[in-house]
Amino acid sequence: MGAEARAAALGLDIPDYADPPYGGRYGRVKAFHRVGDFVEFSGITPETRGGDQLHPGVVGVDVTLEQAREAARFTAINALGMMRLALGSLDQVAGLSRALCFVLTPPAYPPIYEVAQAASDVFLDVFGDEIGTAGRATFGVASLSRNNCFELLLSLEAASKG
Amino acid sequence: MGAEARAAALGLDIPDYADPPYGGRYGRVKAFHRVGDFVEFSGITPETRGGDQLHPGVVGVDVTLEQAREAARFTAINALGMMRLALGSLDQVAGLSRALCFVLTPPAYPPIYEVAQAASDVFLDVFGDEIGTAGRATFGVASLSRNNCFELLLSLEAASKG
Amino acid sequence: MGAEARAAALGLDIPDYADPPYGGRYGRVKAFHRVGDFVEFSGITPETRGGDQLHPGVVGVDVTLEQAREAARFTAINALGMMRLALGSLDQVAGLSRALCFVLTPPAYPPIYEVAQAASDVFLDVFGDEIGTAGRATFGVASLSRNNCFELLLSLEAASKG
Repeated sequence: MGAEARAAALGLDIPDYADPPYGGRYGRVKAFHRVGDFVEFSGITPETRGGDQLHPGVVGVDVTLEQAREAARFTAINALGMMRLALGSLDQVAGLSRALCFVLTPPAYPPIYEVAQAASDVFLDVFGDEIGTAGRATFGVASLSRNNCFELLLSLEAASKG
Repeated sequence: MGAEARAAALGLDIPDYADPPYGGRYGRVKAFHRVGDFVEFSGITPETRGGDQLHPGVVGVDVTLEQAREAARFTAINALGMMRLALGSLDQVAGLSRALCFVLTPPAYPPIYEVAQAASDVFLDVFGDEIGTAGRATFGVASLSRNNCFELLLSLEAASKG
Repeated sequence: MGAEARAAALGLDIPDYADPPYGGRYGRVKAFHRVGDFVEFSGITPETRGGDQLHPGVVGVDVTLEQAREAARFTAINALGMMRLALGSLDQVAGLSRALCFVLTPPAYPPIYEVAQAASDVFLDVFGDEIGTAGRATFGVASLSRNNCFELLLSLEAASKG
């Protein structure tokens, strides 16, 4: 069972980043760049295509840990849409490389990896362990754009062309 | 019109990172590494080759948003010098991959992407939309080396050799 | 003299990340991903394989600069173990690409690059200048997992296979 079939079976509501075209809210940015089979994505946020934010604010102050996990899960589903935009299909993902998770936190808020794991769980459910497990690091930062509580930096290996 | 011609037409004062040789102020670091056509750069800062800093300090506290944008623009011009060092010429840039922007901020300072956009604008002016638009993410952090207000992490695709 | 011989001469105590298998403490993560000759590693921390942390806490508050440098040095030695896991031998490292250093700091703590340099010194001792010098950037962040005082994000070029 491939990743597209799994995503369908899970009933995930994956946004279309081709329509309307990606970019604009934060100025001139593009969604991804591919060099050979290596793909780096632009920062992915817990926002709808229309700009509605899920649980903005500082985790542990304005936003609970569980809400931050919801935002991370939502961001990971958005990432699936970004992958489709980059590769045409989730079935073209050969392996996740690195998922860097940035969480808006007050000083010294250690459980940030619990937020990151909520994003990882989506990738494991859709891609399985071999393709869906990523290297990871999680950082609590002072500020994120529009006060989002989470932002994901993803890189991956695409299946080779031809 | 290529990127070198555009940079000349814009009158940008691009520093030479070959003379004096890059490195030293922050210990033993190198300017870039290339694997195939993928190039990762060392952190790029709003400092002259001699070490003079443009607008150091915390954005929103010691430094205004407009000053931070000046620092980001100055950093992007420095990045052009780093690209020349890596590739020989700006005309050898096939595409920017990812521009990660780190801004020195107090807690919860959302307009950080306005700072990042000032760097992006330089790249768009020099390379045009197709080559000069990058994936991007912007983070407000507690500390940067020497209290710089901005630091840029850049990766790009070089034109293939031969 | 190769990197393995130098590491042996230095008497470094490099942990084995194959036994027990890497991963688990922070959820489902993998150690590294390789695309062609480019390798990205998961975040590397100043922790023993058993989970004991070296000098957790905020640098400049709970932890001295010198203690943070010890943690960075310990992390770099752990990174050598991660490289062995990824490539089989340190002698398969063709060149370090980028070492991103994240330090747990209070607001505006500029000497973070002195912490990062302690990690760089290990790489220079083991690999020599040509292979062991990396591009680098250092960021002071509000939070790191388990309140570690340091975390390293490393990418490198592996020697080409066959």
